[in-house]
Amino acid sequence: MSYKNFPMVPRVIFGRGSFNQLNDILAPKRQSINAPFIYLVDDVFKNTTWLTSRISLSYDDKIIFVSTKEEPKTTQVDELVEDIILKTKARPSGIIGIGGGSVLDLAKAVSIMITNEGESKDYQGWDLVKNPAIYHVGIPTISGTGAEVSRTTVLTGPEKKLGINSDFTPFDQVVLDSELTKDVPKDQWFYTGMDCYIHCIESLNGSYLNAFSKSYGEKALDLCKEIFLDDNIGPSNIEAQENLMMASWHGGMSIAYSQVGVAHAMSYGLSYLLGTKHGIGNCIVFDHLEEFYPEGVALFKEMKALHGIELPQSICAQLTDEEFEIMINVALGLEPLWENAVGKNWKKIITRDKLKALYQKM
Amino acid sequence: MSYKNFPMVPRVIFGRGSFNQLNDILAPKRQSINAPFIYLVDDVFKNTTWLTSRISLSYDDKIIFVSTKEEPKTTQVDELVEDIILKTKARPSGIIGIGGGSVLDLAKAVSIMITNEGESKDYQGWDLVKNPAIYHVGIPTISGTGAEVSRTTVLTGPEKKLGINSDFTPFDQVVLDSELTKDVPKDQWFYTGMDCYIHCIESLNGSYLNAFSKSYGEKALDLCKEIFLDDNIGPSNIEAQENLMMASWHGGMSIAYSQVGVAHAMSYGLSYLLGTKHGIGNCIVFDHLEEFYPEGVALFKEMKALHGIELPQSICAQLTDEEFEIMINVALGLEPLWENAVGKNWKKIITRDKLKALYQKM
Repeated sequence: MSYKNFPMVPRVIFGRGSFNQLNDILAPKRQSINAPFIYLVDDVFKNTTWLTSRISLSYDDKIIFVSTKEEPKTTQVDELVEDIILKTKARPSGIIGIGGGSVLDLAKAVSIMITNEGESKDYQGWDLVKNPAIYHVGIPTISGTGAEVSRTTVLTGPEKKLGINSDFTPFDQVVLDSELTKDVPKDQWFYTGMDCYIHCIESLNGSYLNAFSKSYGEKALDLCKEIFLDDNIGPSNIEAQENLMMASWHGGMSIAYSQVGVAHAMSYGLSYLLGTKHGIGNCIVFDHLEEFYPEGVALFKEMKALHGIELPQSICAQLTDEEFEIMINVALGLEPLWENAVGKNWKKIITRDKLKALYQKM
Repeated sequence: MSYKNFPMVPRVIFGRGSFNQLNDILAPKRQSINAPFIYLVDDVFKNTTWLTSRISLSYDDKIIFVSTKEEPKTTQVDELVEDIILKTKARPSGIIGIGGGSVLDLAKAVSIMITNEGESKDYQGWDLVKNPAIYHVGIPTISGTGAEVSRTTVLTGPEKKLGINSDFTPFDQVVLDSELTKDVPKDQWFYTGMDCYIHCIESLNGSYLNAFSKSYGEKALDLCKEIFLDDNIGPSNIEAQENLMMASWHGGMSIAYSQVGVAHAMSYGLSYLLGTKHGIGNCIVFDHLEEFYPEGVALFKEMKALHGIELPQSICAQLTDEEFEIMINVALGLEPLWENAVGKNWKKIITRDKLKALYQKM
């Protein structure tokens, strides 16, 4: 038996207002006046001066606003990298991602592709990255994805939706400032929070579970329950903002040392074909997974009702057989997720018909 | 308000038998055939071939067995460093500590002092270290101290018992293999486990508490309760070995981003004067701290009774006034611990008489 030697984020700062320390953190990392810091910022913050005015740009530093209407794509990474290389005099001093899971994953992928040849689609998989990434910093502005601690950066490529999993992927620095999450709309707060909840359920019910993952997953799950089983708590509750940030962190650590499961595998299929965003996609799928996670799904339905969340229905109603096949192919390609969820004999249980029947309910 | 930018252990491997992967982990870190790996190993393992035979020594690699009868001293660090520098042809490739908190702290201190001039006593305090340490690996063989994740290395110097707190102190790599804890004697298992329990109580009841520390402290506390409130569980229970290893890890993370309190401050006094080991010293002190931690102490007494642990009594009975003064000076010197435990006005509450009266009970 061989265990994973897991790379952890080597620096973390936590606290309300800690974003103000970003400039001090970055200053010693500047390589030269020609080597700028590139900030990838979720474009919801485009006119949000309370945030952008606190980023101090020097020399050739630049903010690039990134649309997160769609899930991050390998082509988007390649375009960003080309643009950065063309427009900077020297290799950047660092990439700083400020946003949700999409922006954080883009920041990780861009920092890798600046030092690795070819196209990002060539690195989708496990341990294909050859050279260390440039310095990269993750600053979540919504909680739940776990992208701030993960060893992957999930991308939709021409052939598959799959992460760049490597020891060079994790951030060199994370800033956890719950104040940045204060304006998240309620539905998005719920969907992304449920991403964390589902990480915990999938990790804790998986065959890859171990005492390391279990302790992180249990804590994250406790925090999620505390937050989402209380209908007095909403996205503007400051204590809940802090706790959900920690839930995301611990949930991310839990899956990092185990694996996700059925909801993630199937939601990648939805996302690949229909462009469904990851948070809401997970919720749409998980709502129909009683068979795999009976207690987890029951609690999910309770939380959904408590917060008055209405999920889209029948998003697969108009799909052709061919389209179902595409989704099923993407989902079945994620072998470790199925092995974790169902066990070594998963191929006997998870048939194409079974997946089609599940997708047809969604 | 300024928050700590905390350095985390950047690599961790967890799992029963993961110690077998140590040689593979170290191989790429070897600088040259003249730059050996130095293993500092607790001398309880001197004739324990199931452990030592799995360390593969190449070139000038060397095992140094370290006595842990006494708490680690600055003079001990300086002697080890001198010995290593004299006897190696080149700066070592790394220091690997295999043992309890004492050995882990020695390994951290030695790795720092190989690259920093002068004596280790000059670095007792906060952020006095100038140069990065050499590569150092921590492998706990008993659970509870949190030394595997901490940013300090606690040493008894000529003038004080105080840690070398620095960004260069944390290990570069930690191996968490619960199998290494399988032969810990019951009393030591309890004392060191209680070090973790007390970390949690002090962190969770301190004024420095924040959502980061709270989430780690609560998880560690839950795990401690699960283990020590069940009299069917002893040191040979494998599941408990795994869970206690995680409790130690999370408890260490909790105090890393907050602070310890009264038990640690007073136990440092005992240790400085009487050489009382840290685990048992914490227990002796904590047993008398109902005033500060009523619920925590009540639960501690319950666990102590459940496991039939008898603490030494009247260890301060024969002390002179001068000796009490020495202990009180050491304890009062740890200002952040008191501020965390009692608040900003702690000096009005924690008088010398009060501490003397407490020590007299022990």
